[in-house]
Amino acid sequence: MKIGFIGLGIMGSRMAANLQKHGHSLVVFNRTREKAQPLVGEGAKWADSPAALATQVEVIFTMLAHPDAVEEAALGKDGLLRHLGPDKMWIDCSTVNPSFSRKMAAEAKAQGVDFLGAPVTGSKGQAELAKLTFWVGGKTSDLETCRPLLECMGNKIIHCGGPGTGAALKMVMNQLLGTAMAAFAEGLVFGESLGLSREVLFEALLGSPAAAPFLAVKRERIESGNYEPADFPLRWLQKDLHLAALSAYEIGAAMPLTNAAKEVYCLAIRDGRGSEDFSAIYDFLARSQDVHPMENEHHNDPEAFSSHPRGAIDSHHL
Amino acid sequence: MKIGFIGLGIMGSRMAANLQKHGHSLVVFNRTREKAQPLVGEGAKWADSPAALATQVEVIFTMLAHPDAVEEAALGKDGLLRHLGPDKMWIDCSTVNPSFSRKMAAEAKAQGVDFLGAPVTGSKGQAELAKLTFWVGGKTSDLETCRPLLECMGNKIIHCGGPGTGAALKMVMNQLLGTAMAAFAEGLVFGESLGLSREVLFEALLGSPAAAPFLAVKRERIESGNYEPADFPLRWLQKDLHLAALSAYEIGAAMPLTNAAKEVYCLAIRDGRGSEDFSAIYDFLARSQDVHPMENEHHNDPEAFSSHPRGAIDSHHL
Amino acid sequence: MKIGFIGLGIMGSRMAANLQKHGHSLVVFNRTREKAQPLVGEGAKWADSPAALATQVEVIFTMLAHPDAVEEAALGKDGLLRHLGPDKMWIDCSTVNPSFSRKMAAEAKAQGVDFLGAPVTGSKGQAELAKLTFWVGGKTSDLETCRPLLECMGNKIIHCGGPGTGAALKMVMNQLLGTAMAAFAEGLVFGESLGLSREVLFEALLGSPAAAPFLAVKRERIESGNYEPADFPLRWLQKDLHLAALSAYEIGAAMPLTNAAKEVYCLAIRDGRGSEDFSAIYDFLARSQDVHPMENEHHNDPEAFSSHPRGAIDSHHL
Amino acid sequence: MKIGFIGLGIMGSRMAANLQKHGHSLVVFNRTREKAQPLVGEGAKWADSPAALATQVEVIFTMLAHPDAVEEAALGKDGLLRHLGPDKMWIDCSTVNPSFSRKMAAEAKAQGVDFLGAPVTGSKGQAELAKLTFWVGGKTSDLETCRPLLECMGNKIIHCGGPGTGAALKMVMNQLLGTAMAAFAEGLVFGESLGLSREVLFEALLGSPAAAPFLAVKRERIESGNYEPADFPLRWLQKDLHLAALSAYEIGAAMPLTNAAKEVYCLAIRDGRGSEDFSAIYDFLARSQDVHPMENEHHNDPEAFSSHPRGAIDSHHL
Repeated sequence: MKIGFIGLGIMGSRMAANLQKHGHSLVVFNRTREKAQPLVGEGAKWADSPAALATQVEVIFTMLAHPDAVEEAALGKDGLLRHLGPDKMWIDCSTVNPSFSRKMAAEAKAQGVDFLGAPVTGSKGQAELAKLTFWVGGKTSDLETCRPLLECMGNKIIHCGGPGTGAALKMVMNQLLGTAMAAFAEGLVFGESLGLSREVLFEALLGSPAAAPFLAVKRERIESGNYEPADFPLRWLQKDLHLAALSAYEIGAAMPLTNAAKEVYCLAIRDGRGSEDFSAIYDFLARSQDVHPMENEHHNDPEAFSSHPRGAIDSHHL
Repeated sequence: MKIGFIGLGIMGSRMAANLQKHGHSLVVFNRTREKAQPLVGEGAKWADSPAALATQVEVIFTMLAHPDAVEEAALGKDGLLRHLGPDKMWIDCSTVNPSFSRKMAAEAKAQGVDFLGAPVTGSKGQAELAKLTFWVGGKTSDLETCRPLLECMGNKIIHCGGPGTGAALKMVMNQLLGTAMAAFAEGLVFGESLGLSREVLFEALLGSPAAAPFLAVKRERIESGNYEPADFPLRWLQKDLHLAALSAYEIGAAMPLTNAAKEVYCLAIRDGRGSEDFSAIYDFLARSQDVHPMENEHHNDPEAFSSHPRGAIDSHHL
Repeated sequence: MKIGFIGLGIMGSRMAANLQKHGHSLVVFNRTREKAQPLVGEGAKWADSPAALATQVEVIFTMLAHPDAVEEAALGKDGLLRHLGPDKMWIDCSTVNPSFSRKMAAEAKAQGVDFLGAPVTGSKGQAELAKLTFWVGGKTSDLETCRPLLECMGNKIIHCGGPGTGAALKMVMNQLLGTAMAAFAEGLVFGESLGLSREVLFEALLGSPAAAPFLAVKRERIESGNYEPADFPLRWLQKDLHLAALSAYEIGAAMPLTNAAKEVYCLAIRDGRGSEDFSAIYDFLARSQDVHPMENEHHNDPEAFSSHPRGAIDSHHL
Repeated sequence: MKIGFIGLGIMGSRMAANLQKHGHSLVVFNRTREKAQPLVGEGAKWADSPAALATQVEVIFTMLAHPDAVEEAALGKDGLLRHLGPDKMWIDCSTVNPSFSRKMAAEAKAQGVDFLGAPVTGSKGQAELAKLTFWVGGKTSDLETCRPLLECMGNKIIHCGGPGTGAALKMVMNQLLGTAMAAFAEGLVFGESLGLSREVLFEALLGSPAAAPFLAVKRERIESGNYEPADFPLRWLQKDLHLAALSAYEIGAAMPLTNAAKEVYCLAIRDGRGSEDFSAIYDFLARSQDVHPMENEHHNDPEAFSSHPRGAIDSHHL
């Protein structure tokens, strides 16, 4: 079966190569042609446009940077949709927002094209090893048709529901990452201020039922204080929290913690941490220039949990 | 009528002097005796302890720095309560928390002493000009008995209710100050980022129905960037927000904004702004070291309010 | 001078009538023609489309419900912009977001048309009495040209800066309203829980430097518990807070309190208060179904501010 | 070696029984004597007071409900400390706050008594099976001396540091639980609103790196909607978050998410969910009485992520 692949970036090139390894013959297109060479060297055919590609294949994968690029490739002049023809299949693996994915599903349907939105999670390395996870939104029958192809690139294929649900699930996942990281950072700074060593805290918390497993991966960064290069830049995570807050608004869901996290990360970005790994939120919360904090008066005071009436001195005379 | 006055600090000394000006003969006590000299020079009698003072007067005012000091003066060895005797009156003008004031009321009652909790608001200057406001918690009849004395020192006497209510009202007042200042600071930074000049913002907002009147007083600080010396140190306001959050917990009241404000001020304290005026929260929110904020991409972009799908690029590949 | 007026709703019809009263001859268009009758009865001329209207006038006012409607009237088929011609003037009084207003300014410029974005604040009654406030974004020279016209409809004309700044300022204003209302509601519930009467709280807080003036207008609603009909539906305010949070994200401004307020209002909407006046946030925070709150244990406890070690009993056995 | 055990409640009785099973001879005391019968039946000796008990043993364990009870047993009349004598050991397993534990350490030291604060985590069942975790604060040498005794009752003995650190660590643990539960509840409600089935969400999130392991235990409750009886009442968790916020204030640590979580749980308590399991926060966030949410306009709108300029209609006319 002839397969088209559009978008040969860090992830896409590796995914396409895995399809090729499984003996599928590819027709490929990419904005910058050079990136196609390795695949072409292995026998892939180059097409000069999404439209040209569409005329030669039964299935098209798109793996592009953002919805703009997907819309251009699908609906722009030389777009694929008008040339793919009925009963062919388009699988968009790009990371887009749920509503955009629903929109593409509608456009495809209008052309009689079957559509799956299937964003992935996984690193560059996992892409190479065909160990990606696919979060699939679309018709079950379409997924079953494509499953063998997805299994060339990933080892977890999860059907989330109708169009847009794959993107939705990924958004929830990142909302959990962002809140868990910030809450853990709060707990670490808090515990250290209470006299616990960072090592004791890590030993006790990581692997405990209370801490998300991914936090263990951040231990080394926090211990070394090295947040560059970023696995996941703080700025990007904050944008995902923003997108979650945005779509939560649109459906009327309340997310007080998620919004609070969004704002703490925003303050960290203003403090210059935006391009560091998002675990740098710990460092942002930990650093203190306060030389004589009244608060610390009580630090070694057995009454530290009392109402420390001294507080009352502070009430204000307008 | 002989009046005792304990606590001759910045506020107390001025309050006592106003009683004296109205011809009341005073017996005074203060931890450091020197502070009593001006009053003694005008005919006040010195007492060596609260107890010694209590035996000579019908009414005692206390104006002390915090509940610890009040408790010591009232219940400590040489405390006033056991020596004041029945049907005498104790008026505590110190700033204490509501529950502490209720506790003192109970201790006084046990000795047959009438008690009023009457914290004040007003500046040093207003204390001098007898223009303080008294927030009185206690029996109406007791307040009426003392009103003439309070009117020697203040021009607004507000009966808030039973014991502790004066302190409670003051706490609400400072909770409003703290949230209004922080929310206004957010609005200013936001408006300036949207291209509005600070002057236009001040002109439009100050004096509008949407802005608390006290904010006008902060304009000069914000324009000059001079937050020293502090009228009301940021650290103290944050402590009041903490005390409000603490007592809100105890009565089961939800205060999400107040708690959010408490935390922003806490971050500002860690950033070294604790001893500056609380309006420095503007400067804390305004300062940004972010050199290439992805966010600013959109600053002059007519689509700045669009969903900037570019956002999607940021979704994370775990 | 011939003036075109598009959008004859509650506000627009009154604004147009005021222009007419000042002797300006109008050409009017509205989606539903009936609404034009009163003006036509007074001599205004009807046009069948924005385009038709544009050919007959030097200045056009638009007062439409939302940016979609403005875009349609300006750029749609039979849109005004292509027919208004160079050196004519378009003043959009609709409430739109800053970036949309900047976009219209750009479109107008492309046609050689001068443009002002001039959203208004003020009630139906103030529209009738020509007491609106105009928040104007655009060129000073253009504003001066139009000032006499604006003065037929409003008594406060504020030049905020370049295109979009009028809309930006209005957004800040509503952000202040929303945070002030929610923080005041927190304070009221808190104070009442501490034993203060609502009347004492209103007397002490309203008119104090700590409370925004508009809050006085909400007293009657809160005392009567009547939040219908809404002056400003809670749902709309929450949407303004959302739009503020959205644009704050895009310019990288941190707004923790504004976001916290957005979420409390969201919870109130889910609780069914969305179409009530936004002051219903008080009622949302005040209502409690908790029959035996552990918190209240401490309510009349003199130690209420102590660390109430009883708290420790609650620490969890996983 | 003779061991004293004070506090024979749900946990204490099981812990004491495990010491007995290992052949240690016990002297026991409990406020209500009956609870001692099973242990006495197995050969334990009854003492009429902590003081009487102290004279007969080398080591004392206390497992009491709260710091008040501990203070009474240690320092009250017939308290243990004055009668235990030098070089004996006191191990407090009660859950207390860090500063209280530091205070007991100081009191013990003054009597020449060695002290360990060793709060436990684990269920009733784990207490029975000697599978508790001990979080130990105190001297290493003291811990090593007692380790064999602790190993009769638990299988994880963690030395956290000096006095109070055990309690501190437990507080961080519960802060993580509370924030993770609330953030996960937000994500679930959000995901379901976006059209994801609860089952898909659980399958995808539970066991993913982004979700704390304990959340899997809550799945059944959330699916069944049965939050009674509570494993950990929401009210207790909220109190732990409050205690964390309280002590964070005292040491000057910023905890915006923790405070936001505290307030959401507070709203849930006011809504009547206080005595349900803390996972009921999901149900609190999920329930909506909003019949015609403007927000839902966009629910099935492919533009749902656009800036939905319609929003602008909501900007307010003061």
